[in-house]
Amino acid sequence: MTVFSGIFPAVITPMDAQGAFNPEAFRTVLEFNIQAGVDGFWIAGGSGESVLLDDEENRQIAAIAAEVCRGRAVSIMHVGAATTARAAALAAHAAKAGCDAVCCVPPFFYRRNDAEIVEHYRVVGQAAGLPLFAYNLPSCTNVDLSPGLMQRIQEAVPQLKGLKHSSPVFNNIAAFAAMGLSCFTGSAALMLPAMSVGACGCVDGWPALAPQRWTAIRDAYKTGDLDAAQKAQAHAAELFALYDKNLGIGFHSLLRHVSSRVLGIDCGPPRPPGLPLSAEQQRHVDTTAQALGLYA
Amino acid sequence: MTVFSGIFPAVITPMDAQGAFNPEAFRTVLEFNIQAGVDGFWIAGGSGESVLLDDEENRQIAAIAAEVCRGRAVSIMHVGAATTARAAALAAHAAKAGCDAVCCVPPFFYRRNDAEIVEHYRVVGQAAGLPLFAYNLPSCTNVDLSPGLMQRIQEAVPQLKGLKHSSPVFNNIAAFAAMGLSCFTGSAALMLPAMSVGACGCVDGWPALAPQRWTAIRDAYKTGDLDAAQKAQAHAAELFALYDKNLGIGFHSLLRHVSSRVLGIDCGPPRPPGLPLSAEQQRHVDTTAQALGLYA
Amino acid sequence: MTVFSGIFPAVITPMDAQGAFNPEAFRTVLEFNIQAGVDGFWIAGGSGESVLLDDEENRQIAAIAAEVCRGRAVSIMHVGAATTARAAALAAHAAKAGCDAVCCVPPFFYRRNDAEIVEHYRVVGQAAGLPLFAYNLPSCTNVDLSPGLMQRIQEAVPQLKGLKHSSPVFNNIAAFAAMGLSCFTGSAALMLPAMSVGACGCVDGWPALAPQRWTAIRDAYKTGDLDAAQKAQAHAAELFALYDKNLGIGFHSLLRHVSSRVLGIDCGPPRPPGLPLSAEQQRHVDTTAQALGLYA
Amino acid sequence: MTVFSGIFPAVITPMDAQGAFNPEAFRTVLEFNIQAGVDGFWIAGGSGESVLLDDEENRQIAAIAAEVCRGRAVSIMHVGAATTARAAALAAHAAKAGCDAVCCVPPFFYRRNDAEIVEHYRVVGQAAGLPLFAYNLPSCTNVDLSPGLMQRIQEAVPQLKGLKHSSPVFNNIAAFAAMGLSCFTGSAALMLPAMSVGACGCVDGWPALAPQRWTAIRDAYKTGDLDAAQKAQAHAAELFALYDKNLGIGFHSLLRHVSSRVLGIDCGPPRPPGLPLSAEQQRHVDTTAQALGLYA
Repeated sequence: MTVFSGIFPAVITPMDAQGAFNPEAFRTVLEFNIQAGVDGFWIAGGSGESVLLDDEENRQIAAIAAEVCRGRAVSIMHVGAATTARAAALAAHAAKAGCDAVCCVPPFFYRRNDAEIVEHYRVVGQAAGLPLFAYNLPSCTNVDLSPGLMQRIQEAVPQLKGLKHSSPVFNNIAAFAAMGLSCFTGSAALMLPAMSVGACGCVDGWPALAPQRWTAIRDAYKTGDLDAAQKAQAHAAELFALYDKNLGIGFHSLLRHVSSRVLGIDCGPPRPPGLPLSAEQQRHVDTTAQALGLYA
Repeated sequence: MTVFSGIFPAVITPMDAQGAFNPEAFRTVLEFNIQAGVDGFWIAGGSGESVLLDDEENRQIAAIAAEVCRGRAVSIMHVGAATTARAAALAAHAAKAGCDAVCCVPPFFYRRNDAEIVEHYRVVGQAAGLPLFAYNLPSCTNVDLSPGLMQRIQEAVPQLKGLKHSSPVFNNIAAFAAMGLSCFTGSAALMLPAMSVGACGCVDGWPALAPQRWTAIRDAYKTGDLDAAQKAQAHAAELFALYDKNLGIGFHSLLRHVSSRVLGIDCGPPRPPGLPLSAEQQRHVDTTAQALGLYA
Repeated sequence: MTVFSGIFPAVITPMDAQGAFNPEAFRTVLEFNIQAGVDGFWIAGGSGESVLLDDEENRQIAAIAAEVCRGRAVSIMHVGAATTARAAALAAHAAKAGCDAVCCVPPFFYRRNDAEIVEHYRVVGQAAGLPLFAYNLPSCTNVDLSPGLMQRIQEAVPQLKGLKHSSPVFNNIAAFAAMGLSCFTGSAALMLPAMSVGACGCVDGWPALAPQRWTAIRDAYKTGDLDAAQKAQAHAAELFALYDKNLGIGFHSLLRHVSSRVLGIDCGPPRPPGLPLSAEQQRHVDTTAQALGLYA
Repeated sequence: MTVFSGIFPAVITPMDAQGAFNPEAFRTVLEFNIQAGVDGFWIAGGSGESVLLDDEENRQIAAIAAEVCRGRAVSIMHVGAATTARAAALAAHAAKAGCDAVCCVPPFFYRRNDAEIVEHYRVVGQAAGLPLFAYNLPSCTNVDLSPGLMQRIQEAVPQLKGLKHSSPVFNNIAAFAAMGLSCFTGSAALMLPAMSVGACGCVDGWPALAPQRWTAIRDAYKTGDLDAAQKAQAHAAELFALYDKNLGIGFHSLLRHVSSRVLGIDCGPPRPPGLPLSAEQQRHVDTTAQALGLYA
């Protein structure tokens, strides 16, 4: 039975120089993380530029992820879209492609009431016929999936397995766990505290850059070694120095740039309107990454 | 020279029973409003379920709008999308199809910085080669286009002509007008007050249901008859009784239902995840609409 | 019968060099505005540093305001406080001192539910035995008095006469007017548009600096001269150039500085933690005010 | 040297039946918690109805707290007020009365810029001459003390020792700890996770109702027993069932009612506009508390 816990990097979607999906680079990203001991992946999600991909790209990504991960890591494929029909079609494809689970942001852009959100998840879950993860990402979707709303989804959607919680409401993690949901924290900075109140692991873009810093938290936690877990969390947190808000660094640009250097391949620029790192931003990132030993 | 002022209904995108775009019903919607004396249209925008439409639908809609409006009303075609490439391609098509102008929400879902938003509009404006309207819709896009940001767009985008302001910051209307922008209020409830501080007209879904209630405001305003304008605004405002928030009525469902009854055709259900009116909601809407004389 | 409409400057509370209330300067402020034709005053409210005053100061201010205004202008005295008991005591005193009405922010600091807010107003209204105005100031109180909540207050508080609406929800003005409430806009920038949907006038700190710019709006509006009203509103709006947000100018500091210069007296610094204008801020304000002809 | 870590209940301010401060009941509250092994107290803070107290009450409370705590527990006295002068006077008194430290919310009601907030804390810290804790309570004060602002305060205020962090931004705890600040989480639900990223303890109203449930978290944490700490945190969390949001229970009313029953004394009603528990709310609270074994 598939185990949904531990470290699930939210991987980028590498592009080539023309901005098209780069399948080879994508395989490299997955392999690097599998070798490092991650438990699974969150594919084409927030860090993977999700809703900027077209449907054909999403399908191609799902197929490769399923193939590379089979028997080695758990693949959770993002299928969220603005319409229910499109999300359901992507969900059906992810299942056919052999992914282990699907994940899905609530319908975005227009504000939706609870009944619409529940029905959206019901149709998507049914189309997938796979374990379904909600993706609580209020900064992008404008809806914070509360324990009350998750309960309505849980009652209506037999496929619901859990959620990624990328919301500032830390308090809700314990409530989701108490409902029997597998709750991944969406904040790599908070993996240890989140697990201490019931989170099952971490889904975020950061671990893909240095996976062993996060598997170390997982491993210390498993043995009940609080002191080692805290040291590992603090060690992992050093990476956040890459992200200087005063410089206005975009998260996708950062992930792509550092991944390219760490892996020694070109992961491409963010998809516009995302802008690549400026020369000044690049200098800050490279200097910091070198000091952290991420690359030479 | 095209005049961008007055009443521009934000029309719905009618669907057939299967949820596919209904070209005939769309023509009927446009004709009804042209006959009633509107000045132009905001096509496939917020009320038209914009980002729920696929690209082929958007192109088909642009072509019909351009054809029906030619020489009779001004067509402003919405081309906003999550990626710059998709928005630019739709913009280029709208120009080719013969629309008078394009409009575009800022890039949505991911939070964008000012440089990214400006560059997005620059590329879209260039692709269109037509007058460009920004679409300030913070409830859906999470960014409120401020006078400062509009100034940066104005400097970088020669096609920029104005904006639809669907933001609660009423104060900014005067600032936009002072910058030489054609600022349509996005709130039909506030047409008169918005014009009193410099708005050029109104773009909203409501006027499409009873256009003459809003052309009456325009006409009274033009003659400087404050008392008549206030009476007309109050008369128009009677329609908002259709929208009982306690009943959780969806705006698209409401517009589609009332349009169907007013026009005597089937404008279809909202696109899922939008839900059609419940029986209880329908009763409230029908009773209110009949009392208002919108339909029998 | 007291008439609650027109221009009600929200006057500052002048201080002496030691930061104590300055009764003589306060009389000068009131006289200047009465001579200029204002209809009344909002005393010791938001612009008057309301909740920074102690109770003895509040009582002294009420007494002077009542005395100066008697038969010449309408005095609405602010009595809001964090506890119901303190607000009610100030309300009783304002009545005894001879003020025409009281106004009161909802209880602040702690978040209150509707029942607590209604009961607060009921006790304060009863203690005053005078017309009562709610003071909708969500930026300071964290509660936006909605039409629904105002209706509950209206049902429970026979003294309720109206409100000052210093909220961004412009839409609600028409709803308050429809409920029979005297609704003053709290935004001097929006006096004309607010009146066009039913506001009874304007309460704000700005008109106290140049009252005739706002009485001109009132007078044009009364005669139904839309064009003149718009010109007057635009003329009044020129004052907002004093307030350059990039310079971080505090509103109280600005009002005090400009009042001092306009009136030729020392209105004192804001009460700490408010900071006086820096030299750079003062230069900007003086240059702008001189260009506007406010003082030499 | 005074140690600022562990469990610091934020105690209520008991009142008598007439709503006046009840010194005897206050002593009982402190004694109960000291006997249970708490490390110190947060006096007359958020749970103690802070800004609803008048200055004379604040001074009386400080004197009793200092006397009861001397050598037995650490007393941190709240001195926050809307004006700097009032806060500084209360701070000076707290020092004279023998309290171990003072705490202070940022200036509230009016929005303040960073310079004003820093200067406020500078004056208050100097007046106290005692360790100073900032009180980050954005739900009441409208300002979230960020790491950047805390750094400015740290540079300007030699007395600054730490803060109580009652903000949803969980992420900032690690940043505050890295700055050398003693950071108490203000959320009793999050004591363990907060300590896992560097918090020094917990300040909240809940522990005062059942202190040993929280000292058990502290004790397990000290020995590095992660499993026991998690069990203790979960056991403590059972208390939150008392607080049913659907019933609209006020936090102060809840704390007062349960304290009265637990301690067998009358802690009085909340100060108006706070409302006491309704009969229905009281039934829910009593049933839940009895099931939890808080009282019979």
